[in-house]
Amino acid sequence: MKTLIKAVHVLTIDDQMTEYKNGYVLIDGEEIVEVGEWLEQEIAADEIVDGQGGLLLPGFINTHTHVGMIPFRSLGDDVPDRLRRFLFPLEAYMTRELAAASSAYAISEMLLSGVTGFCDMYYFEDQVAEVCDRFGVRAIVGETIIDMPTCDSEEPSGGLSYCEDFIPKWKNHPLITPAIAPHAPNTNSYGVLKKIVEMSHDYQVPITMHVAEMDYELIELAEEHQQTPFELLESLGYMERPFIMAHCIHMTDSDIALTAAHAKNARIAHCIGANTKSAKGVAPVKSMLKARLTVGLGTDGPSSGNTLDLFTQMKLFANFHKTYEKDRALFPAKDIVRLATKGGAETLGFDEVGSIEAGKKADMILVETQSVNMFPIFDPYSALVYSANSSNVEHVWVNGKQLVKEHQLIAHDLREIREELYNQMGQFVAEAKKRM
Amino acid sequence: MKTLIKAVHVLTIDDQMTEYKNGYVLIDGEEIVEVGEWLEQEIAADEIVDGQGGLLLPGFINTHTHVGMIPFRSLGDDVPDRLRRFLFPLEAYMTRELAAASSAYAISEMLLSGVTGFCDMYYFEDQVAEVCDRFGVRAIVGETIIDMPTCDSEEPSGGLSYCEDFIPKWKNHPLITPAIAPHAPNTNSYGVLKKIVEMSHDYQVPITMHVAEMDYELIELAEEHQQTPFELLESLGYMERPFIMAHCIHMTDSDIALTAAHAKNARIAHCIGANTKSAKGVAPVKSMLKARLTVGLGTDGPSSGNTLDLFTQMKLFANFHKTYEKDRALFPAKDIVRLATKGGAETLGFDEVGSIEAGKKADMILVETQSVNMFPIFDPYSALVYSANSSNVEHVWVNGKQLVKEHQLIAHDLREIREELYNQMGQFVAEAKKRM
Ligand SMILES: [Zn+2]
Ligand SMILES: [Zn+2]
Repeated sequence: MKTLIKAVHVLTIDDQMTEYKNGYVLIDGEEIVEVGEWLEQEIAADEIVDGQGGLLLPGFINTHTHVGMIPFRSLGDDVPDRLRRFLFPLEAYMTRELAAASSAYAISEMLLSGVTGFCDMYYFEDQVAEVCDRFGVRAIVGETIIDMPTCDSEEPSGGLSYCEDFIPKWKNHPLITPAIAPHAPNTNSYGVLKKIVEMSHDYQVPITMHVAEMDYELIELAEEHQQTPFELLESLGYMERPFIMAHCIHMTDSDIALTAAHAKNARIAHCIGANTKSAKGVAPVKSMLKARLTVGLGTDGPSSGNTLDLFTQMKLFANFHKTYEKDRALFPAKDIVRLATKGGAETLGFDEVGSIEAGKKADMILVETQSVNMFPIFDPYSALVYSANSSNVEHVWVNGKQLVKEHQLIAHDLREIREELYNQMGQFVAEAKKRM
Repeated sequence: MKTLIKAVHVLTIDDQMTEYKNGYVLIDGEEIVEVGEWLEQEIAADEIVDGQGGLLLPGFINTHTHVGMIPFRSLGDDVPDRLRRFLFPLEAYMTRELAAASSAYAISEMLLSGVTGFCDMYYFEDQVAEVCDRFGVRAIVGETIIDMPTCDSEEPSGGLSYCEDFIPKWKNHPLITPAIAPHAPNTNSYGVLKKIVEMSHDYQVPITMHVAEMDYELIELAEEHQQTPFELLESLGYMERPFIMAHCIHMTDSDIALTAAHAKNARIAHCIGANTKSAKGVAPVKSMLKARLTVGLGTDGPSSGNTLDLFTQMKLFANFHKTYEKDRALFPAKDIVRLATKGGAETLGFDEVGSIEAGKKADMILVETQSVNMFPIFDPYSALVYSANSSNVEHVWVNGKQLVKEHQLIAHDLREIREELYNQMGQFVAEAKKRM
């Protein structure tokens, strides 16, 4: 099956940031086989897509989210210590079926907003992986390990044994990478943290974890280990493994230097929206990038970042980092689009995607430029960062297959997905309302 | 003509922030005549709108913008000192026809994103007022006065004589308020600043102005007058007039106290998006509100804030002020929706709108909740601030008349408006490209 996409402004996000203003891309099966300027070539294709002058770019990569958490959205958004007051207690009402229904909803939402790959961590990750497989998205799915009973385990740290079935089951899937997801450095015992890094090595899977997100996390680790989260994790060998660290808000220059020595493995999922909505702070991304750390953007869960699209994150990223560093020229829009696409792919180790180049897997999106917010366009990157929103995403391909066409899921019915989620949410809603 | 809107969750934004979860509103002519809980009342109406469970709220008020500046969007976004490098030089290529075409485009964009009223300042404001009249929006239109030749005057400060025709022409329009718009305290001479306040008094029209936006503005005024912008303007009598001050980034506690003594007149158009994108800083809104100043939200022009919708501003407002004040509970979503609607109406002196109450003019919007980003909704204000975007705006009424229906302008064709703007932009684009 060959698909020719033409009449598009291609932002390849290759190493030279090459653009083709009247460009085309040819997909053959899962792969991009040609990309360039359209010169009325004779190209045989089974399907031709007329991009009508829209922007074609690599799919966005959401480097940190919790697809099971749609039920929490808009619940207790502005209350202090929400994690311990709302999220942990209500997680008791999360079921296998609810997690699956939420994941289907969240993945639909991401696809419709141009996210083609993501890194998840939550519970019932076997169900999450099944839903990912059903939708055909690229994902790392990490089962959470935490030192308390959870919705999918009566025993504390039950994720450890969960992983023993879960990881082998998904280990060789072409699009899905199972992972181990310790909740945070301060919510697992030293012994469990050690076991996790060993498991990651034994199974050859990545680790993903919330790191240096909470102020009390730093205090607890300083008291217990006289270490920063980064010092602790480095000493435990985490940075020898493919390791996706979400947040890293409280990261000192010395933490950055320490992590930079392991930059090939230890990468950062920066969640500016969730971090600033909860007043936790602004991670030092300028310094991270100066130290050549790999950084991608993430939304965090729908309870924290609320939307799962990267347009919102790009806009917040621009305004926060420019303002924090008092430099309007810092992080021009082009750099931010790169972070949200290629940067995310590098963060998740998705080497086969992240740019539009021959030989790469075809994970791409078309952002239309007919809507009122998308004119004029002197700079396509500016339009993406400062003007566009998720409703501008018209077509989405993952691994060569078109999943979204004209703003609609091709193989799924969003109304049914919402109805299933609504039906599964009954008890959760009743419990949530008691706490409001 | 009576219109009954039912099956809506009404957020009235009245003094008690009353909500009607299964609510209805009856419009008679220009006015809201009934609002309440829907109890299957017998109500005669010429038209019935089924809101399908959407959120009905007062229209957003954009307290500071430049509708003539659509041609500048995405041009030189991330360059230092953009005002003097790009905006001022290119304004030479602004024509009466281009300003009109841009205004039609910008007003369309605002209506489609739920903005029913705004305060504009730019050039050719007579054309801007004509376009406002044609579209039926509520607006303050301020002709800019600046100490240099402009696109609508060869003489410096030519806006002064422009106003002598412009103001009387529009003075008694039911929806349009002409205004005088000195560009900034440091871009007009002391003499001109004095004349402006007198004119505002003579004609009984408001003043709108950029105040304390630029760091160099403060330095220049300190050198010339040994005063802050607020001290200067207060001493000149600006604060005895209805006075809409845009930005107010650099406002000290003593400036706030000084202004608070004139809070009935001197009000603030806070443009968080434009201010932070350009790394100018975060205005002290918490302190302003504590001092009982009136504050509304503004996008600034499409070159500065890029989009003209208030959803983007609400989201940025939440995240920036919570993070700056290190308090996630500060400005809960409900307060932010109030600022973007009622707060804006108060800022512009639009006493006849801003809330959904019997006797008010019907400026209202319906935000649909069927789209993927709008579920679940435990808190409708959270959904508006953290999840919604302008594409969720389904219907818009201004002064009792429906202007947007099912996401489309009723009386205008967006394609034609865009084509007219494109055609008018020829020379502007050629000049812009020379500078890129
Ligand atoms: Zn998280
Ligand atoms: Zn302005």
